[in-house]
Amino acid sequence: MRQTSHGPIGVFDSGVGGLTVLKSLMERLPHESTLYLGDTARVPYGTKSGEVVTRYSLKNAQFLLERGIKLLVVACNTASAVALPALSAALPVPVIGVIAPGARAALKRTRGGGVGVIGTPGTVRSGAYQRELQAADPHVKVKARACPLFVPLAEEGWMTGEVPHLVAREYLADFAREGVDTLVLGCTHYPLLKGAIAEVVGPHVALVDSAEATAEATAELLALREMLAPEGAPTTHGYYVTDVPERFVEVGARFLGRPIPSAEQVDLSF
Amino acid sequence: MRQTSHGPIGVFDSGVGGLTVLKSLMERLPHESTLYLGDTARVPYGTKSGEVVTRYSLKNAQFLLERGIKLLVVACNTASAVALPALSAALPVPVIGVIAPGARAALKRTRGGGVGVIGTPGTVRSGAYQRELQAADPHVKVKARACPLFVPLAEEGWMTGEVPHLVAREYLADFAREGVDTLVLGCTHYPLLKGAIAEVVGPHVALVDSAEATAEATAELLALREMLAPEGAPTTHGYYVTDVPERFVEVGARFLGRPIPSAEQVDLSF
Repeated sequence: MRQTSHGPIGVFDSGVGGLTVLKSLMERLPHESTLYLGDTARVPYGTKSGEVVTRYSLKNAQFLLERGIKLLVVACNTASAVALPALSAALPVPVIGVIAPGARAALKRTRGGGVGVIGTPGTVRSGAYQRELQAADPHVKVKARACPLFVPLAEEGWMTGEVPHLVAREYLADFAREGVDTLVLGCTHYPLLKGAIAEVVGPHVALVDSAEATAEATAELLALREMLAPEGAPTTHGYYVTDVPERFVEVGARFLGRPIPSAEQVDLSF
Repeated sequence: MRQTSHGPIGVFDSGVGGLTVLKSLMERLPHESTLYLGDTARVPYGTKSGEVVTRYSLKNAQFLLERGIKLLVVACNTASAVALPALSAALPVPVIGVIAPGARAALKRTRGGGVGVIGTPGTVRSGAYQRELQAADPHVKVKARACPLFVPLAEEGWMTGEVPHLVAREYLADFAREGVDTLVLGCTHYPLLKGAIAEVVGPHVALVDSAEATAEATAELLALREMLAPEGAPTTHGYYVTDVPERFVEVGARFLGRPIPSAEQVDLSF
């Protein structure tokens, strides 16, 4: 495995959602440069098969690797859930997904041991969160549910009001009744719907978002392997997308919490 | 241009939605064989750029052409809206989209000359329906609106009840007030939400679905060019998809109105 403190941290996602993970990385590791790839020509991943998501993930990773990244963060929950073993086997740099950090954060929060997980159909079907949670604590009770309409609602900007509330109630009413005290928002889009989700599950359920936990895990790994960029080194942040950049630049700023100056369009259909 | 009565009719769509067009083709032209390609690994097209949708459409068309189709029906509204000129220029067989037949059907139905069009962001942004309607009748008043949440609702099977009703009200309440007497369902998924749409726009607005009109246009073109398959010839119907076939076969039966015996997975990322 290649180990160096040079080079940016690579981050990929199916689209804009992973920018919430990039945001946490920038806050936690302000001396690191980053390269972000949003696969906007093939988004979404959450409704596609593990086979196709793995193929796309390997192409994304190869693209970033050719640009000299020292570590890869898979910011997409679906890709983390289905493609992490293939990515770790194929890449000469360390690979971090969002599932394990999110699961660990949930286990720290739960008091009664009932953890809910919501995500895309691909993430929930993979069972990755369920495995990760039960490997760390065999006594934890896990209830998982796919919420496929949350992504289009967040992408549309319908984050408050009657429609997201009703959709959240349809998906989540059971959680409130089943002893769940901690709910993992297992998709990078879901934090945008936190308000509607919290209304339905109530104030006694802690909502866990894996972005911060993933940034923390990245910081720990870089420190452990002595791969942190030196303080004071100049940092750069680059953005690539596979569809035209306009919408990414516009919508992405909402996810990143700061403007995206520009993004370069690249063709990964090789 | 290659003209022959041999070979199947090729049909492509971004996924399952175009099966409603295939259904109408099978009913109108029972002696024709068909090959259907659903680009399920890259679905949806409606939220992607014209550039990317055109690239995917050309690959889909080339794949079907290599399998000997005599004519191509572009069953996807978004692909018809943005890629038809490129497809017609590139292919040696006739190409029919769903926009022109749908627009003509709407002009036959309208009494007051107010036509509404709903579709994906890509279809509405292209202005294809608006141009087609006004070219045929410069006096027609057209009001178009993108309804991006209708596709995920239909795919999820949330076709009746409170959520689709509220979403339809949010998108369509204006149409009822603006003298629209005919509404084009400009996306193959939307007929599945006909109930919710009709509730909001009311009984005096005619809903036009381009599937039947497209089948009629195909029958006319085949007859005119003497390309109809001879009666009594054995017919076959083949299905290809770019993601794994299981969900397509299962969900597709709802759109096609008959079982899909099997579908073959193919890789078009060449």
